[in-house]
Amino acid sequence: MTDELLEKRGGEMIFVGTELLLGDILNTNAQYLSRRLADLGISCYYQTVVGDNEERLLQTIRTARERSGLVLLSGGLGPTVDDITKEVLAKALGRELHLHASSKERIEAFFRKREIVPTQNNWKQALLPEGAWALENENGTAPGVFLEDGGVLFFLLPGPPNELVPMFESGVVPVLRERARGVILSRTLKLVGIGESAAEHLVRPLMESQRNPTLAPYAKMGEVHFRMTASGATPEEAERLLDALEVELEPHVGAYVFTNRPEELEDVVVRMLGEKGWSVSFAESCTGGLLASTLVNTDGASEVFAGGVVAYGNKVKEELLGVPAETLLNHGAVSGETAEAMAEGVRRTLKTDVGVSITGIAGPGGGTPEKPVGLVHIGCSCGGRTWSVRHLFSGNRRKVRESAAKTALVTLYRTLREMS
Amino acid sequence: MTDELLEKRGGEMIFVGTELLLGDILNTNAQYLSRRLADLGISCYYQTVVGDNEERLLQTIRTARERSGLVLLSGGLGPTVDDITKEVLAKALGRELHLHASSKERIEAFFRKREIVPTQNNWKQALLPEGAWALENENGTAPGVFLEDGGVLFFLLPGPPNELVPMFESGVVPVLRERARGVILSRTLKLVGIGESAAEHLVRPLMESQRNPTLAPYAKMGEVHFRMTASGATPEEAERLLDALEVELEPHVGAYVFTNRPEELEDVVVRMLGEKGWSVSFAESCTGGLLASTLVNTDGASEVFAGGVVAYGNKVKEELLGVPAETLLNHGAVSGETAEAMAEGVRRTLKTDVGVSITGIAGPGGGTPEKPVGLVHIGCSCGGRTWSVRHLFSGNRRKVRESAAKTALVTLYRTLREMS
Repeated sequence: MTDELLEKRGGEMIFVGTELLLGDILNTNAQYLSRRLADLGISCYYQTVVGDNEERLLQTIRTARERSGLVLLSGGLGPTVDDITKEVLAKALGRELHLHASSKERIEAFFRKREIVPTQNNWKQALLPEGAWALENENGTAPGVFLEDGGVLFFLLPGPPNELVPMFESGVVPVLRERARGVILSRTLKLVGIGESAAEHLVRPLMESQRNPTLAPYAKMGEVHFRMTASGATPEEAERLLDALEVELEPHVGAYVFTNRPEELEDVVVRMLGEKGWSVSFAESCTGGLLASTLVNTDGASEVFAGGVVAYGNKVKEELLGVPAETLLNHGAVSGETAEAMAEGVRRTLKTDVGVSITGIAGPGGGTPEKPVGLVHIGCSCGGRTWSVRHLFSGNRRKVRESAAKTALVTLYRTLREMS
Repeated sequence: MTDELLEKRGGEMIFVGTELLLGDILNTNAQYLSRRLADLGISCYYQTVVGDNEERLLQTIRTARERSGLVLLSGGLGPTVDDITKEVLAKALGRELHLHASSKERIEAFFRKREIVPTQNNWKQALLPEGAWALENENGTAPGVFLEDGGVLFFLLPGPPNELVPMFESGVVPVLRERARGVILSRTLKLVGIGESAAEHLVRPLMESQRNPTLAPYAKMGEVHFRMTASGATPEEAERLLDALEVELEPHVGAYVFTNRPEELEDVVVRMLGEKGWSVSFAESCTGGLLASTLVNTDGASEVFAGGVVAYGNKVKEELLGVPAETLLNHGAVSGETAEAMAEGVRRTLKTDVGVSITGIAGPGGGTPEKPVGLVHIGCSCGGRTWSVRHLFSGNRRKVRESAAKTALVTLYRTLREMS
């Protein structure tokens, strides 16, 4: 019966705390619990944040009781008068609170160990609603609560992440594993070189016809992600379904996919360079080192990345990169010619196999009708050939710089891919 | 009438997106908007996260319409079939969607500028519910929406933070300021060189006695922020209260404050360099250009920043920065001696007044008992003197690199401050 209700209705989360409503803290518990429920194959349809207010919390719990099969509550388990979650949950379900002997002992032991005398309000934490189970708290005094009411599972967890996480893993996960049916697995294909609408357009028929796995596109700073989620009786069955969908997607979007693993584009680029035994260097103007600092996010970067030059002023472009003065004079610092001279220059100066360059106008000032803000030339020098591509990016200074660095990384990726 | 409803009922937020329910992204918008509403003196009583599902979103909007005076919705404004927020809002309020001519033009211009052909589904973004106003999107194609229905204010904002934040500031805040009663103003003092607990300790008595303005400390990546919020009948009255608190704080924390304006440390550093007529250059090893790319966040950076060298490998340290081979051999790449040679080298090579260098071990590999992961030397060369300071940072690779770049910027700031 419970299993059916959980499967039919799914779960929801209620986060209790005025500090969340004031923005004093970032709700990282929401992301953590969401991810873990998805891993367990339990759909979650709502998350609600509500303050330490009896009436509003009561209403929120009653609504959840009507529409969900699982309710995870977090926060408001502390000893102060503000902490009302347990009391309100008991009231919403029409249950009395009783002193829980072993929780009281545990609280006594906790204070004894720290040589502190507990105050009266600490005993409030040892109260449990009728018919509930206590969940052990490794990192604090407040025990958690598990109870089942009309087939709906309620878990009450503390707010601090260092208490919530271990309690969820040791006290909640085993119960949910037993109740949940089958397995849900996700896999994300990451694409570059195509926009979200265009990518969606290519796979629209599949998105609409697919039920298991489901397929959903997301845009993420110069990338498109296709998230595939499959449910199966076993992990193997779910994996097989994901494999099959990936094969089906291949002819439509395979040319744009750079990975089907939980890794970033810079990780793939570093790996490709390593496989070829190649080294790379960067010459950056408007991005000011953003491309280099992105690449060194990757652990193994030092194997393939020699370094770079941040050539913000023209003097540095001439002296460190050997960009001819007449190129700068005739074509300007923001030109395909300068981008190519920078790419070739940094490759030669730093003695690497590949050189990549960026020169552009990030704004807000410095634009002209011929060379507007957002104009960026990206150069590449590799395998005896040097070329550049002109781009026009939109947005503010930061956005233009981020787009330019990302596009340069994509250029490097595609160059390596074509050469393999 | 509206003002009364807003004051009586307060506001709520609805975040739309299955990716939030799956835990794929952390809901930073919730914290941002919560803080800003608190600044404006508007109480927020609920936050709800709901997926891209028509029935559930419709129900959530209807509930909000009944209980709140202000509803901020975020997410689901994109061009794909999954993006349904605008359509569902129109349905919930019984309004038709119409093509909004100037939004359509803006989308056309966006694509024209990028030299891309829009696909059919992009036009969906130019639809507006009857009676609604479009809010301009600086960083994307989807315009926001503002409409008033039965005295309740609805704002529809995009999900990506880089689109939501500027739209909230330019399109929502002015409306809310007009509707809210009285005036609430905030001012943030930003400090470096002191930790959060130490800073809080210095002002604890003031924090506890203050009611108007209130005073709240926040820790932010190497900085401590003191946020002061004052309410008054007029802006002048609120400003006066903030001025008075700032004067009171000065003897306690003045030595650590780098600004009381909405600007970053890099903005202050660029301004100080400009005032002195000095130029600066950077030599970065483990941070891989992160320091340079932080400085060029500032508009006027090109006036004072010549460029830098990302010296990841030892060869680059020797050849481009002139670090003596014996220094590298005797002391190692991560040493005070190398940091000093790098700072002096980059200052000389790029002919600037100041040179700043970073060399360290970001991890996860490469640490030894003598030189553990997190060890970073920061060098500075300026006014005929070159010195370095040894730091030990904790955290993962990314955290060590961020701490190192931030600390180098603080070093530069303090050097400039001492010399003025």
